[in-house]
Amino acid sequence: MAGDRPAIPLSPPLKDELDIVIPTIRNLDFLEMWRPFFQPYHLIIVQDGDPTKTISVPEGFDYELYNRNDINRILGPKASCISFKDSACRCFGFLVSKKKYVYTIDDDCFVSARSIDPSIGLCFNSVSCVRSGSDEFQMCWNSERMVAKDPEGKEINALAQHIKNLLTPATPGFFNTLYDPYREGADFVRGYPFSMRNGVSTAISHGLWLNIPDYDAPTQLVKPLERNTRYVDAVLTIPKGTLYPMCGMNLGFDRELIGPAMYFGLMGDGQPIGRYDDMWAGWCSKVICDHLGWGVKTGLPYIWHSKASNPFVNLKKEYKGIFWQEDIIPFFQNVVLPKECTTVQKCYIELSKLVKEKLGHVDPYFQKLSESMVTWIEAWDELNPSEQAKPVPENGKPAKA
Amino acid sequence: MAGDRPAIPLSPPLKDELDIVIPTIRNLDFLEMWRPFFQPYHLIIVQDGDPTKTISVPEGFDYELYNRNDINRILGPKASCISFKDSACRCFGFLVSKKKYVYTIDDDCFVSARSIDPSIGLCFNSVSCVRSGSDEFQMCWNSERMVAKDPEGKEINALAQHIKNLLTPATPGFFNTLYDPYREGADFVRGYPFSMRNGVSTAISHGLWLNIPDYDAPTQLVKPLERNTRYVDAVLTIPKGTLYPMCGMNLGFDRELIGPAMYFGLMGDGQPIGRYDDMWAGWCSKVICDHLGWGVKTGLPYIWHSKASNPFVNLKKEYKGIFWQEDIIPFFQNVVLPKECTTVQKCYIELSKLVKEKLGHVDPYFQKLSESMVTWIEAWDELNPSEQAKPVPENGKPAKA
Repeated sequence: MAGDRPAIPLSPPLKDELDIVIPTIRNLDFLEMWRPFFQPYHLIIVQDGDPTKTISVPEGFDYELYNRNDINRILGPKASCISFKDSACRCFGFLVSKKKYVYTIDDDCFVSARSIDPSIGLCFNSVSCVRSGSDEFQMCWNSERMVAKDPEGKEINALAQHIKNLLTPATPGFFNTLYDPYREGADFVRGYPFSMRNGVSTAISHGLWLNIPDYDAPTQLVKPLERNTRYVDAVLTIPKGTLYPMCGMNLGFDRELIGPAMYFGLMGDGQPIGRYDDMWAGWCSKVICDHLGWGVKTGLPYIWHSKASNPFVNLKKEYKGIFWQEDIIPFFQNVVLPKECTTVQKCYIELSKLVKEKLGHVDPYFQKLSESMVTWIEAWDELNPSEQAKPVPENGKPAKA
Repeated sequence: MAGDRPAIPLSPPLKDELDIVIPTIRNLDFLEMWRPFFQPYHLIIVQDGDPTKTISVPEGFDYELYNRNDINRILGPKASCISFKDSACRCFGFLVSKKKYVYTIDDDCFVSARSIDPSIGLCFNSVSCVRSGSDEFQMCWNSERMVAKDPEGKEINALAQHIKNLLTPATPGFFNTLYDPYREGADFVRGYPFSMRNGVSTAISHGLWLNIPDYDAPTQLVKPLERNTRYVDAVLTIPKGTLYPMCGMNLGFDRELIGPAMYFGLMGDGQPIGRYDDMWAGWCSKVICDHLGWGVKTGLPYIWHSKASNPFVNLKKEYKGIFWQEDIIPFFQNVVLPKECTTVQKCYIELSKLVKEKLGHVDPYFQKLSESMVTWIEAWDELNPSEQAKPVPENGKPAKA
């Protein structure tokens, strides 16, 4: 029997301080593959869509599951800020978590190949079904677990990499050309100011994806066969003042630091837009991290993104966002939060006012979104009363050890 | 005979539009290794130190060589702006070049291994002498050329990668999480504004180093055995508003765009500081690129940096810089160039005034440096009269095809 069981590390990092949040509309068979890495942790599953449907979760996982009825019951009228029929509902999981850290992942993401460079070779037990790159990605882990190994033969643990990213400081003030200076074998290069080498707290760890890249619908349509095959062995801090497109597929964050900014907006059912939920959270959280002096990292870990969503459906969801973002990006690039905004909540409320004021002319949707941003913060404070008055660490101070 | 000759591509890219600038104090045997890549190009060798010493250059290279006597003769009193007994003298080569592009490299840098990850394996013909990582790096290319190959068996051509970096646009306005979006197999990810996908002209391509990392003296002393073994397969644009430590060891740039900002300052003989020449050029050129709307890339290509310089000697050269940079970095982070600065020369003259005004209190050296910056621009305009009035491309416009 022992041979059938995946090896679980003796003391998984942050076991009691991290929740894994998964939005889903289907049975969570994909967890089988993540079992060796996720089983020690508590899962928060947010069921998207029809609440009468039963979602099955593989045995042995410790989880709580919320469907729409639960969300309505728990939040009452404030439930209006949580999207319906859209994976944006995942942020409800961030709200109800009681942990310091959150990792969130999509249910079509698998343990990632170390590299799919043919010269390096895949270390999968079942290479063929991974190499196919087919949308009909076979779920063959029942016979042999499809777990990638690094060149030294160790299985890659995406969650452990996120934790590493979150527990080491970030360097948003000055770019280090050898990437993450806290990584083994790396350091700050010549010319990096010594006063900045302590770094700052890392609030967000943004992981990437091999196989199906996270493209918008027009790019999907133009390049239907493009696959991301490049394993870039780096983690880097996105500099202060720079925006990036945050993808929610493979994302870790320090919930105690930045949680209230991780609102995934109003998407899906009854809304004029979709697929901008994580982007919205990314823009808001980045300007708040910049304001409060925290860092955002991107790069490792990779997960294996198995299935491209339908580009025609995506186009319908995205098309307003595609032209709205031409106003939204300059808006966020020019946001200046006042000094008085010393907590994430205060920053977020200020941001909601600015959204109404500066993006209201783009579409009435932003009026509604602005109001939902306020509702979200009210819901956050209601469910997390002890966090309201929490002092924010001083800008630019050394991060947690 | 043919077998002895390295394969030279039929039409090397930018053959008549690029000069290779090499500062040196010794015979240029290292060029043997670069022969297949460099031989088609014109070299400008700037002899550092004693002008009576004869530097030998391997046969078959097309080069011009300048020693201190030549510099004094050509520049007259303006020669005072060119450093002596320091590799900062390399910028004299930028001044006398007549080409659109420049690549500059140190004479202890070799064709880089694709990777030194033991699981991937080195593709050198002569593995042993490279793997040793010894300071007494053997020059064994006479028996077998020490040229790295990529996983597909192709030799890595650092210069070709720099040219690729320079000829494709840069994206300083918004971070693309899959790195260089113009690279084969990559693109802009979901959420990247379409209006910014044309990118901007690339002014600078900053390459990295395997083996001996570019550390300052304190880090060298603390980590004498650290080697950079991580091949990060990425090129990325350093975002607008972010400074980085530019290293002159492996550097390409568009001389017509940014040449006048590539002044390597006053270092070495008679100066209170050394090893900040490339940093100075990096800070100045970055703020000017940001002002004029051009991009700076870093990452690939790697070269193999064979020899760590003496950390005790380095400490002596660097120690003032180590505390001065604590003032210099905030200075450059806060520089605002006025709208009227529409050419690199105008930007640079403005910068020289700001250096005097804002860094003068740090040390009298900055007074002298400020004056040398003006002299440098005078020398540039004298030797490059046709470029003086050249209009600068409009900010943010699509880069050259």
